[in-house]
Amino acid sequence: MSRAQLIRPYKKECETSYTSGAYATVELLHTRPELLRAVFIHSAYTDKEALARQCGQRGIPVVYNDEALRRVNQKENAYVAGVFDKYTDALQPGGAHVVLVSPADMGNLGTIIRTVAGLNIANLAVISTAADIFHPKTIRASMGSLFHLHFEAFDTFAEYRAAFPAHACYPFMLDGNALPDVLRGAQNPLFALLFGNEARGLPPEYAGAGPAVKIPQTTLVDSLNISVAVGIGAYAFAMKFGLIA
Amino acid sequence: MSRAQLIRPYKKECETSYTSGAYATVELLHTRPELLRAVFIHSAYTDKEALARQCGQRGIPVVYNDEALRRVNQKENAYVAGVFDKYTDALQPGGAHVVLVSPADMGNLGTIIRTVAGLNIANLAVISTAADIFHPKTIRASMGSLFHLHFEAFDTFAEYRAAFPAHACYPFMLDGNALPDVLRGAQNPLFALLFGNEARGLPPEYAGAGPAVKIPQTTLVDSLNISVAVGIGAYAFAMKFGLIA
Repeated sequence: MSRAQLIRPYKKECETSYTSGAYATVELLHTRPELLRAVFIHSAYTDKEALARQCGQRGIPVVYNDEALRRVNQKENAYVAGVFDKYTDALQPGGAHVVLVSPADMGNLGTIIRTVAGLNIANLAVISTAADIFHPKTIRASMGSLFHLHFEAFDTFAEYRAAFPAHACYPFMLDGNALPDVLRGAQNPLFALLFGNEARGLPPEYAGAGPAVKIPQTTLVDSLNISVAVGIGAYAFAMKFGLIA
Repeated sequence: MSRAQLIRPYKKECETSYTSGAYATVELLHTRPELLRAVFIHSAYTDKEALARQCGQRGIPVVYNDEALRRVNQKENAYVAGVFDKYTDALQPGGAHVVLVSPADMGNLGTIIRTVAGLNIANLAVISTAADIFHPKTIRASMGSLFHLHFEAFDTFAEYRAAFPAHACYPFMLDGNALPDVLRGAQNPLFALLFGNEARGLPPEYAGAGPAVKIPQTTLVDSLNISVAVGIGAYAFAMKFGLIA
């Protein structure tokens, strides 16, 4: 069996990654087909003819290899996988942004990708060190919505800020002002919502980046889960500026 | 070594479960100490004297057993664990509720527990079949906030409805009306927010339970993640009715 008929275990250094599952693979096929090197289809997949036809129309090789798919799957059963070239991307200067400072968990990162794509703030910056956006686990948690998103990694927040000086930054911090109050004063549709690491939140110096925001909450919890906090913050800003309706 | 010095692997049939990690264990110690059968402390835990003293004051046995803790930990390192009696609980008829219909994932269930505790809607109903609320994974994802919550399981939604006929029910469904519009018409502080299973959402018949609600979102995603959807919906209702500020 040639190497092209296998799916290599993912490593961060690899120039390719893969989608596992039909949903994410089809999203990739529809949004960025030029990236796909091959689509793997299990013999038991019910829609295999239709998927193979779509691949054929775009000149993408189809590989029928149950064993290759079995190796990709650990806990979950995916009947489809797509090997694709990783790519570099850039944020839109004219769009609203979400900035994640050192997100550590791939499940959270993927869920946040899905959330911001769903709430029409489809520009995501990550400040390093950050979980790998191309890891198959991240892509799986994003339900394939990674491919609808613009994203960019920066070594430092200063580097992000220098690239996008016009954005009004809102650091989400537990000692900030209540979200509805901050929102009333927000005027600039070019906004950037900043969120910290799961365990540590944003470091105190981020309070200087703009009006600090707190999601009103009880003292029964230390904080909200990062994905939930991004969801609430992004929803409130997206509604205020008419990005969703 | 006696059985009391070990932590048995969790099974749904067990009459005990355990917290893993200092945070959840301390939450339990402060909120429901009478449930604790024993607290296990690793020799490398930095705060062991203080924790042992707090246990001693409440008559809770402390076990120093690194090997028992090692067995509890799979991926994560917990230096503290608490074995406790599972308990039955009941929703408050005078509080707002969140109702989850067949939640399947323990991580989501735990995150939702943390979210509703944080947003002051600390009454959670689950309609069976549902992920196990007492599983250590659920408790871990809840960051120990399970112990601040009232929860109750029902075999059917009809059973829940019969027990709480006064609540205004809001099923979250993709063909519902926009959340801000529904919210404008919402008058009853006794509300119940209904959310479906991760993969399937709410079955169509739930549309009869009350005004159906959709969180405004793009067509780039199929739906939002369940924990994120609960976060946005619960935040919006909690703000409207002054449960958080």
